[in-house]
Amino acid sequence: MATVSLIQYENASDEVKAVFDDIKRTRNVKDVNNFWKALANHPTTLKRTWEDLKQVMQPGALDPLTKEMLYIAVSIANNCDYCIHSHTASARAKGMTEAQYEELLAVVGMASETNALSTAMKVPVDEQYLK
Amino acid sequence: MATVSLIQYENASDEVKAVFDDIKRTRNVKDVNNFWKALANHPTTLKRTWEDLKQVMQPGALDPLTKEMLYIAVSIANNCDYCIHSHTASARAKGMTEAQYEELLAVVGMASETNALSTAMKVPVDEQYLK
Amino acid sequence: MATVSLIQYENASDEVKAVFDDIKRTRNVKDVNNFWKALANHPTTLKRTWEDLKQVMQPGALDPLTKEMLYIAVSIANNCDYCIHSHTASARAKGMTEAQYEELLAVVGMASETNALSTAMKVPVDEQYLK
Amino acid sequence: MATVSLIQYENASDEVKAVFDDIKRTRNVKDVNNFWKALANHPTTLKRTWEDLKQVMQPGALDPLTKEMLYIAVSIANNCDYCIHSHTASARAKGMTEAQYEELLAVVGMASETNALSTAMKVPVDEQYLK
Amino acid sequence: MATVSLIQYENASDEVKAVFDDIKRTRNVKDVNNFWKALANHPTTLKRTWEDLKQVMQPGALDPLTKEMLYIAVSIANNCDYCIHSHTASARAKGMTEAQYEELLAVVGMASETNALSTAMKVPVDEQYLK
Amino acid sequence: MATVSLIQYENASDEVKAVFDDIKRTRNVKDVNNFWKALANHPTTLKRTWEDLKQVMQPGALDPLTKEMLYIAVSIANNCDYCIHSHTASARAKGMTEAQYEELLAVVGMASETNALSTAMKVPVDEQYLK
Repeated sequence: MATVSLIQYENASDEVKAVFDDIKRTRNVKDVNNFWKALANHPTTLKRTWEDLKQVMQPGALDPLTKEMLYIAVSIANNCDYCIHSHTASARAKGMTEAQYEELLAVVGMASETNALSTAMKVPVDEQYLK
Repeated sequence: MATVSLIQYENASDEVKAVFDDIKRTRNVKDVNNFWKALANHPTTLKRTWEDLKQVMQPGALDPLTKEMLYIAVSIANNCDYCIHSHTASARAKGMTEAQYEELLAVVGMASETNALSTAMKVPVDEQYLK
Repeated sequence: MATVSLIQYENASDEVKAVFDDIKRTRNVKDVNNFWKALANHPTTLKRTWEDLKQVMQPGALDPLTKEMLYIAVSIANNCDYCIHSHTASARAKGMTEAQYEELLAVVGMASETNALSTAMKVPVDEQYLK
Repeated sequence: MATVSLIQYENASDEVKAVFDDIKRTRNVKDVNNFWKALANHPTTLKRTWEDLKQVMQPGALDPLTKEMLYIAVSIANNCDYCIHSHTASARAKGMTEAQYEELLAVVGMASETNALSTAMKVPVDEQYLK
Repeated sequence: MATVSLIQYENASDEVKAVFDDIKRTRNVKDVNNFWKALANHPTTLKRTWEDLKQVMQPGALDPLTKEMLYIAVSIANNCDYCIHSHTASARAKGMTEAQYEELLAVVGMASETNALSTAMKVPVDEQYLK
Repeated sequence: MATVSLIQYENASDEVKAVFDDIKRTRNVKDVNNFWKALANHPTTLKRTWEDLKQVMQPGALDPLTKEMLYIAVSIANNCDYCIHSHTASARAKGMTEAQYEELLAVVGMASETNALSTAMKVPVDEQYLK
């Protein structure tokens, strides 16, 4: 169903195995997700994407759960089925409560509505925001 | 430049003035933003949108700054100029630091990239997410 | 500011002039819009696009104003500045009232919100819609 | 398959049941759609969304079928699977003929094409639209 | 599962059969794809879309494979499931190697990321691009 | 007008200067574009994005002009003003002819139209693409 086959660990090259091992170690999981198995067809992209994601999602000025929720918000707006499923699950694994999820969705829905209204009317940006 | 004229408080109907007054009181500002002045051409939509936004953005299971950052993330993905400007300014007014802003943008950028890759390869959702 | 120069009638090739003449005759206007002047850099695309648009927008099972409003709705969702301006103006020229415009925007905004919510929750399509 | 479970009437809270009852009464249907059953996990959002939708979709300056067709147009542009299915079915239930559906899709397709072309060339908005 | 039934050749009108025959001849295939069978419900749109596509996709200043890859890139960004599948298959049939596919996806992913970052920061267009 | 100030070389930190120097050397230009000056507010993201872009855009299985054209196609579909301007200019600098540009836009426009039609009708993917 994917446009590429999914590469399993036992059939992977050493280069791919090294990335898979780092994902499993970093996330403390037994196997990597399908996203990585698909990306493993393209080892250079696999390595670059994982290194980037590891850097971007590490705890910093924003905590990991907030980052996951931002990831969900973008994935909804971009309509990525796979990403909505995997990041909603990740956020829950990181402690997102149902009440937080409700508010997250409410903000995403509300933003989508006012985005459309602002765009429709071509509202000029307020002067104080342009200074 | 907008597709509608901007309604100023002094020229507004009583119905619109009541909403403007509530916005000013709730946000503790002297004047409402252009978004509301544009929407004031459509008083029913103005009232409904403001009531909804007030409910959605109030403090709850998520704090107001997190909600603003989610709003920014969606507005970027939806490419709403006005909304990006106004919500980035609001988030800063609510204390978003430059380090937080950097991480917010990094997550939005990274999500956009992996959204595209997942969509491109039609990666099947992992079984554990479908239970 | 455009990525191509705008071709004015007096500088156009005969092939382009023929299309411009047909647009002016069909729409009963003195000059064509910037969209056509930009597209005139690519005469084959100009001719194909105009012929298609003329066919699609002619009165049929849907009246011209309904077609313009659908055009606005798509242009908002696709965030096309030029198209939002030109089709909102066209709809008004075809008799769209402010009350109709308010309801059009309200539907577009509401659809954007429920689109986001449905997508976020991956709501399964109801069985009766799949028969 | 959804990110939330679907709440059936018999398992719903009184607050949710009251909204479900109003949907069934207003639409004269025996059961509510999956969208509402999913949203029922978030009673506050359920109630707000239903009240808003009821207001927006009621007959007014635009007739109900035109509103449904606008809803379809936005849902296509936003790529919402669930919404495309449910609103296409609703439009047909409200009398949309196959000829109207053909013209609706033709406009949506054509708008998507000219949206892309205008955006690609950054066509400047005609002066008469900016007055 | 589609919103229309798929029209098979043996049940098609003469008008539709003529288009199907031209598609089969032009592409040297035994049967047309589901896209055309769905569009056959709307014969005018079927004919217009096929004539346009045939013109646009013919060899010209860009070779057929480059055109297919551009088609894939747009289909990913627009999130069209059907189109991603069919055009990825077409590109492979036209000789796209796995190495080319990797680079295509890498560019699409990278562009999606920098598009989001540029949009987020509202980066002003460099003066030299506006001359 | 941007949400961040543009960092000029003379005011940049050593870390930022090193990236700017590499960009100027790699591209053989006297100054970096506004995109990089904006991103320089976030040095970690600046460095990561530049390293990634350099890797992705280098000559490989696809030539640099094809990569630029793919970048334009995605930027149009994602509606990124800045990116459309800068990558259209880059493609021209790399030799894109007006005839190639016409065909690029024609494909992007056509894809946008058929993407919308396929999505609207929820066309099922042909069996041969799912093997």
